[in-house]
Amino acid sequence: MMEENANASGEPSGQPAAVPGLTPRRIETLADSVFAIAMTLLVLDLRVPEVLGSRELLSALVGMWPKFVSFVLGFVLLGTVWVNHHYQFHFIRRADRMLLWVNLFLLMVASALPFGVAVLGHHWANSVATALYGAFMLAAGSCLYANWTYATRSRRLVDGALSEAAVQAMKARIRLGLVGYGLAFVSAFVWPVGSIILYFLMPLLYLAPARIDRLVRP
Amino acid sequence: MMEENANASGEPSGQPAAVPGLTPRRIETLADSVFAIAMTLLVLDLRVPEVLGSRELLSALVGMWPKFVSFVLGFVLLGTVWVNHHYQFHFIRRADRMLLWVNLFLLMVASALPFGVAVLGHHWANSVATALYGAFMLAAGSCLYANWTYATRSRRLVDGALSEAAVQAMKARIRLGLVGYGLAFVSAFVWPVGSIILYFLMPLLYLAPARIDRLVRP
Amino acid sequence: MMEENANASGEPSGQPAAVPGLTPRRIETLADSVFAIAMTLLVLDLRVPEVLGSRELLSALVGMWPKFVSFVLGFVLLGTVWVNHHYQFHFIRRADRMLLWVNLFLLMVASALPFGVAVLGHHWANSVATALYGAFMLAAGSCLYANWTYATRSRRLVDGALSEAAVQAMKARIRLGLVGYGLAFVSAFVWPVGSIILYFLMPLLYLAPARIDRLVRP
Amino acid sequence: MMEENANASGEPSGQPAAVPGLTPRRIETLADSVFAIAMTLLVLDLRVPEVLGSRELLSALVGMWPKFVSFVLGFVLLGTVWVNHHYQFHFIRRADRMLLWVNLFLLMVASALPFGVAVLGHHWANSVATALYGAFMLAAGSCLYANWTYATRSRRLVDGALSEAAVQAMKARIRLGLVGYGLAFVSAFVWPVGSIILYFLMPLLYLAPARIDRLVRP
Repeated sequence: MMEENANASGEPSGQPAAVPGLTPRRIETLADSVFAIAMTLLVLDLRVPEVLGSRELLSALVGMWPKFVSFVLGFVLLGTVWVNHHYQFHFIRRADRMLLWVNLFLLMVASALPFGVAVLGHHWANSVATALYGAFMLAAGSCLYANWTYATRSRRLVDGALSEAAVQAMKARIRLGLVGYGLAFVSAFVWPVGSIILYFLMPLLYLAPARIDRLVRP
Repeated sequence: MMEENANASGEPSGQPAAVPGLTPRRIETLADSVFAIAMTLLVLDLRVPEVLGSRELLSALVGMWPKFVSFVLGFVLLGTVWVNHHYQFHFIRRADRMLLWVNLFLLMVASALPFGVAVLGHHWANSVATALYGAFMLAAGSCLYANWTYATRSRRLVDGALSEAAVQAMKARIRLGLVGYGLAFVSAFVWPVGSIILYFLMPLLYLAPARIDRLVRP
Repeated sequence: MMEENANASGEPSGQPAAVPGLTPRRIETLADSVFAIAMTLLVLDLRVPEVLGSRELLSALVGMWPKFVSFVLGFVLLGTVWVNHHYQFHFIRRADRMLLWVNLFLLMVASALPFGVAVLGHHWANSVATALYGAFMLAAGSCLYANWTYATRSRRLVDGALSEAAVQAMKARIRLGLVGYGLAFVSAFVWPVGSIILYFLMPLLYLAPARIDRLVRP
Repeated sequence: MMEENANASGEPSGQPAAVPGLTPRRIETLADSVFAIAMTLLVLDLRVPEVLGSRELLSALVGMWPKFVSFVLGFVLLGTVWVNHHYQFHFIRRADRMLLWVNLFLLMVASALPFGVAVLGHHWANSVATALYGAFMLAAGSCLYANWTYATRSRRLVDGALSEAAVQAMKARIRLGLVGYGLAFVSAFVWPVGSIILYFLMPLLYLAPARIDRLVRP
């Protein structure tokens, strides 16, 4: 029994017949790498000021504040997506072809986010730049929703004993994010600063312990 | 029995004599990282438009469509190679010196693909740029074919019980890709847009469930 | 008993009720990737000299010494943070939402360090550039301190049998670093070269075997 | 017995007293990531030609041959270092503070290699550029030698049953590399093209099956 489960994690074994599906481990490794790179690439938009003297360097660095704020914002938003991905794969036991592709689309959005960050860093509080950010987060949220819905329908790729409450709690959480980022997207065309405030407030929502945490922590 | 298998995965153990070969785990980690980086580097070709005003930014972003299309295309093509690599290593149990090098050549091609994407992004529908793409995919497909053929010959590095049908199903799948990308390569010199359409259609072929999936999913 | 512990590492299992928390494995993978990228991005600040002739190339390379020194310094400082992170997670058994975020903030600082390195490479021994370095290291040290304090309070996420001596030894070690980098930060405004010497001496402190090592090596 | 060994791999366990040292797994993950990034960064030196027309693009691409050759060379040389690292960690069971630092120095050299590749790509067959390459490979080889010597002395971090023949076979292999790259370094000042030929021949030496392979493959 234990041996058969071990196979699912992609560990070598002499009984291929016991393998119930692809291991989700490689999706996790690919995702962790893509998130790590997207997070770290954000820093490439920070350029060294070409000035002379300490005072000039300090004021040049202070003048770069929109770039620092969009760096932090980009990191935190990628962080919320990664944390949610981590929670989902806590419950996902197997992978199949479709799950690989849903995740590849999620990672495509995540890897494009540094571009959104750079656009916002150059065009601070511009309506289009601010809305672009919301569009990326809506796309990421939709991929996370698709991932969870696909994996849990008829308990396809998760443990059969996973409660319906857990499935619905995760869905509710992602829907909340979609509503928030949808509002930020719309607000960008009316009051861009309001959107940016919303982008900063949304992650706080995910920082608080959630219903789903009680299912992970017994 | 279980303990001996565990050794193959590179886990520490007190019996070195039981180690039947190198673990394939590090090839997987290196591959996942290279694919993640190659996928994410694609975004570096997207540069922030240096314009003023929301309307100007929007039209500048819309005018960047060849870059966005080649970004998505590059991501999807790298995705098909990664998915195939994942399926192959689902069956591969051990590694040896030759397998490491076959994989290093595959990763060399994968890491060069962002260059192909950037060339196509700058020279949209140019014959040479379009053919270069096909050449990269032919090279990647050939490496995947070599990897599978080497690993499965006399069941060298896979499970001895792996059926001949599974071995042949995977080979047929890769040959199909080689034919498709070969056609796209040739078409690039006659009708480049046709090549690009083919590059977009090929992944759809791999999205559909395949004969090999039935062997993974019992 | 062993099976229940195995669940904590995120391995698939048929008993979700036995899972006592999120696996810390993905934090490790994300951290290893971010550190790897931050370390490797440091090299992007080394630009190929555009000169002709061997003699000219040699003297151009020699003239780049501040960039090489700040490359080595950046690598070594990231190395000390990574080594400490590795030691902490040797003892950490579980993760929760808060631990994920504490680590994301640590990784945000780590991923920003290449910017600090580039600033120092361009503005060698400038007070602001030298102080910025100290500020990054103080921020990294604070995150490491927060990570350890959070994980070990009431043995929240570590083994219940971990001795109070081990918990305090790690804290003392990080506090020592905070004092050293605090001194370097202050010194930057008075004697920047002294700060840089201190940045080079601090890692030596961590290279020597420590009290904590005796707890790892029985 | 098995359980105690399992602890060494960093898997969670209820008995901290049984932990015989740090897991080498995180060194492997960090190394795989650094090698993956260094390999992939090589491609950043390939810039898209800014020309018009298919014929012009083709001849511009052909004219870039020194960059392609140094890309392939860089990838292959990083590959030989990675393959050797993989073989060493096949036998290494534990890590300690010193091993972490020896590996960090190896990774510092590996992450600097793309700079060496870029210098050679811009200054093809220049004596200093060619010698720099040899210097990097000598540094990498020395780190690999230090890693193996440190880990195997008194069987410090490897399995106690590892034969002296295996320890010596690995050392001989690395010494051979040091001699070859030493020759290439010296030759760079007399006949740079000879050095480059040697850089291409050296990896072939490592492609052939070795005495050490017989110890891995039973």
